[in-house]
Amino acid sequence: MFSRVSTWLRHKPLRLSHFRSYSAPASRSDPPAKLKFIPSSGTYPKGFFTGSSHAGVKATNTRYNDIALVVSEQPCSAAALFTRNVFKAAPVHVSQTILQRRRDGFHGVVVNSGNANAVTGLEGSKHASKMASTADQCLAASFSDSIATSALPETPRMLVMSTGVIGQRLPIDPITAAIPEAYRSLGATHADWMSAARAICTTDTFPKLLSQAFTLPSNPAVEYRIAGMTKGAGMLHPNMGTLLAIICTDAKIDPASITQFLKCATDVTFNCISVDGDTSTNDTIALFANGAAAPAGADALAIPKDVSDLTSIDSTLTEDTRTFARVLTKFLTDLSHLVVRDGEGATKFITIRVQSATSIQAARRAASSISTSALVKTAFYGKDANWGRILCAIGYAPGIVDNPILEIPAGQADQVKPSETSVTLIPADASDELCLLKRGEPQDVDEGRAKQILQMEDVEILVQLNDADGAKSGSQYEATYWTCDLSHEYVTINADYRT
Amino acid sequence: MFSRVSTWLRHKPLRLSHFRSYSAPASRSDPPAKLKFIPSSGTYPKGFFTGSSHAGVKATNTRYNDIALVVSEQPCSAAALFTRNVFKAAPVHVSQTILQRRRDGFHGVVVNSGNANAVTGLEGSKHASKMASTADQCLAASFSDSIATSALPETPRMLVMSTGVIGQRLPIDPITAAIPEAYRSLGATHADWMSAARAICTTDTFPKLLSQAFTLPSNPAVEYRIAGMTKGAGMLHPNMGTLLAIICTDAKIDPASITQFLKCATDVTFNCISVDGDTSTNDTIALFANGAAAPAGADALAIPKDVSDLTSIDSTLTEDTRTFARVLTKFLTDLSHLVVRDGEGATKFITIRVQSATSIQAARRAASSISTSALVKTAFYGKDANWGRILCAIGYAPGIVDNPILEIPAGQADQVKPSETSVTLIPADASDELCLLKRGEPQDVDEGRAKQILQMEDVEILVQLNDADGAKSGSQYEATYWTCDLSHEYVTINADYRT
Repeated sequence: MFSRVSTWLRHKPLRLSHFRSYSAPASRSDPPAKLKFIPSSGTYPKGFFTGSSHAGVKATNTRYNDIALVVSEQPCSAAALFTRNVFKAAPVHVSQTILQRRRDGFHGVVVNSGNANAVTGLEGSKHASKMASTADQCLAASFSDSIATSALPETPRMLVMSTGVIGQRLPIDPITAAIPEAYRSLGATHADWMSAARAICTTDTFPKLLSQAFTLPSNPAVEYRIAGMTKGAGMLHPNMGTLLAIICTDAKIDPASITQFLKCATDVTFNCISVDGDTSTNDTIALFANGAAAPAGADALAIPKDVSDLTSIDSTLTEDTRTFARVLTKFLTDLSHLVVRDGEGATKFITIRVQSATSIQAARRAASSISTSALVKTAFYGKDANWGRILCAIGYAPGIVDNPILEIPAGQADQVKPSETSVTLIPADASDELCLLKRGEPQDVDEGRAKQILQMEDVEILVQLNDADGAKSGSQYEATYWTCDLSHEYVTINADYRT
Repeated sequence: MFSRVSTWLRHKPLRLSHFRSYSAPASRSDPPAKLKFIPSSGTYPKGFFTGSSHAGVKATNTRYNDIALVVSEQPCSAAALFTRNVFKAAPVHVSQTILQRRRDGFHGVVVNSGNANAVTGLEGSKHASKMASTADQCLAASFSDSIATSALPETPRMLVMSTGVIGQRLPIDPITAAIPEAYRSLGATHADWMSAARAICTTDTFPKLLSQAFTLPSNPAVEYRIAGMTKGAGMLHPNMGTLLAIICTDAKIDPASITQFLKCATDVTFNCISVDGDTSTNDTIALFANGAAAPAGADALAIPKDVSDLTSIDSTLTEDTRTFARVLTKFLTDLSHLVVRDGEGATKFITIRVQSATSIQAARRAASSISTSALVKTAFYGKDANWGRILCAIGYAPGIVDNPILEIPAGQADQVKPSETSVTLIPADASDELCLLKRGEPQDVDEGRAKQILQMEDVEILVQLNDADGAKSGSQYEATYWTCDLSHEYVTINADYRT
């Protein structure tokens, strides 16, 4: 499978020099408070190259790159998860089709920011296909003098993503003109990755890029790498946020297992963050694995068909599989947190941990409802320990209460016992925690101490649903969500987003 | 049933003069833009009296009345609907118990604003009971020299409501001291009703009070009246808003039917408004009917047990029942709109009409999701016709998409057909409407005209889910929701509500 690419590399030395010629664009100025989240160097997976260019998708953008390419020189196994929104954007439909038709042999993804190409009718689908095929043509041009390909494949080898305003037609001509330019800029340095991470941003205030090395137990001498970029600052809620995320690794993953790896890791990371409760039309998270760091003959990481819990100790997973699942989950945790850190108008990073629930669903319903409550989020913005709103949000969570419109039957309420519920604020600096409600009884809260905790950028809300009998009743399920506060700036950003 | 009260009236002429002695408190200043929603006179149901007094529930409130009483001199039939929130406030539990134990013979309700008495543990329940029994003692004092009662009834004849901050203990002593004072202030003038309507307000910027006369077809010579007050400006979402509503009529309603009357009318009115998607711990809407205007021997308005649709023409309802159901529904529509008009920080009144849905649930799911989308609401605040967000909100609506956390199965998406969906802006001034999306295809929108429409305070969004085949396929269900925009002021109000 990998031989074709080696051939390509062998035949394209001149083009490779192009990959390095990319120079970073004039960067938007990053907020000083966010600089700590922007890496100044990185370690990137072998055989992956990134590039970007300027198409001016948004008429007001005369300056910043808004086309990004992520390309593997070797064909990859790939997986992507998409928004559940009924009004899926055209690039979502097109990428889904590509993934279905072409089970392997992927080479990466082309992305535009500035326009979501969503709810754009038949023309929108043509535009998304055109983006994928234009990117594929760039690959074809590289391959043209190799033995591997001479004609364009029927199904593009590149996925496509768009992000930006919904319901406006994509300016396709400048985009198709800019894609070859992005291709020519491909490179593998930190600056190259950073420029692509910047090009996919919309209302983001800083680029979101992470990378790391890891090893697998069966052969600790081999170093693998994983890198990922993400964007998304609003219209952001589990299943999934308005976000794009692209993760690349040079580990070797079985094409039949890669979706399950991604799904398990996403479920407890990107599907547990919320900025504003709006689930967009475009959300896409893609994982590419090209195996470039794997020694010849190394087994691909695979998962038996009947295993869904990658953390289970009793499963038949190999140590390598288990290790990679842990690495991927931790990596997606860190990457997804960057999105929350840049939540539109966010001033706080709020961790919501719900414990001693009677089921994982109950824990997630409670955590999700808190994470989307406008009143909880404005209170945190105001540094106000208005914890009654936390309880309130648990108490009306769909699935915890019955709901005739959703046809959720009555009798759900036993998931939460008000008289057994406790709420505690956990400060970020490991100083003493502050109990607000203990088994249904409000505590005499030191408001000064509460204010002190709420001054911190990072705060954790710990909710115990069955504080009394967690251990003995088996009410031991828990869920963790991450969200930000709701500020004046959120309103400012979204009241006039299109201009 | 009504004889006891006549006795009471006969024995209490002096006390009745007290009822008129009430003088309006120093009023908060009402916003000039809202004056058109505040009636300067009214026509109130016979036999109902209202009063208010100052307890200083909130320490910072040294001036405004925060205790309200609504009392019928005759025993009433009564119904109340309550929040579905699991963390029901103490007054909700206490009122539910009173309604269950005492099937009739109600005399009204006592309300405090400034503190919701919610999530306040065992002490909170005692406080709510104390409020109800204190109010009942006032009645008992009135009855003391009559033949009807000499001892306090085991179950109070007064319901109890609280509204305000959650999770703080109620200052019960000032409240129990203020209730008799409110009782002494009872009166039946417009000023009396208005002062009670003001006393139940929290973050409301204007009092919400409506009244009207109506007749029933069987005896058009008899004039009945209905009056109601409501409050609630935030933590407000169907099932139900953070609101209190008290509706009184001098029509005669069968105690066994009154709950169904209220339920049917609430379902398409107060359960179809949203300010911020938070469903509070305290929501209560109560209907009292004392029959004081009904001629002797008149039949009580009743509903057969098996009828749930009061608008159905094929049903066995009498013309009187049908007429009253219409009057009540229209009255609750108008009353509920006042709450939206005063949504926290609201600058717009947005009607969301979803048509040609395949079921009433699909219509309501779509309308509800639009009405709570932070992105739709900030766009309207910014007068930005960002209609893609409307489609987006429909597309992720729980119940329209599958949801593993809510255990909503896949296969729901056929409720919405993107290629058959149309969206139109309907201006409030009956000028030309503006089609934004027609059967899945975005229209070339005149942005100037869109801005013009969005300058208006009232805007309607019309969504047709199956525009092509509504008539022929039977996709003819519709739902109407009402909401407001999300503004900077909402954040300001809620970031520091407790101080």
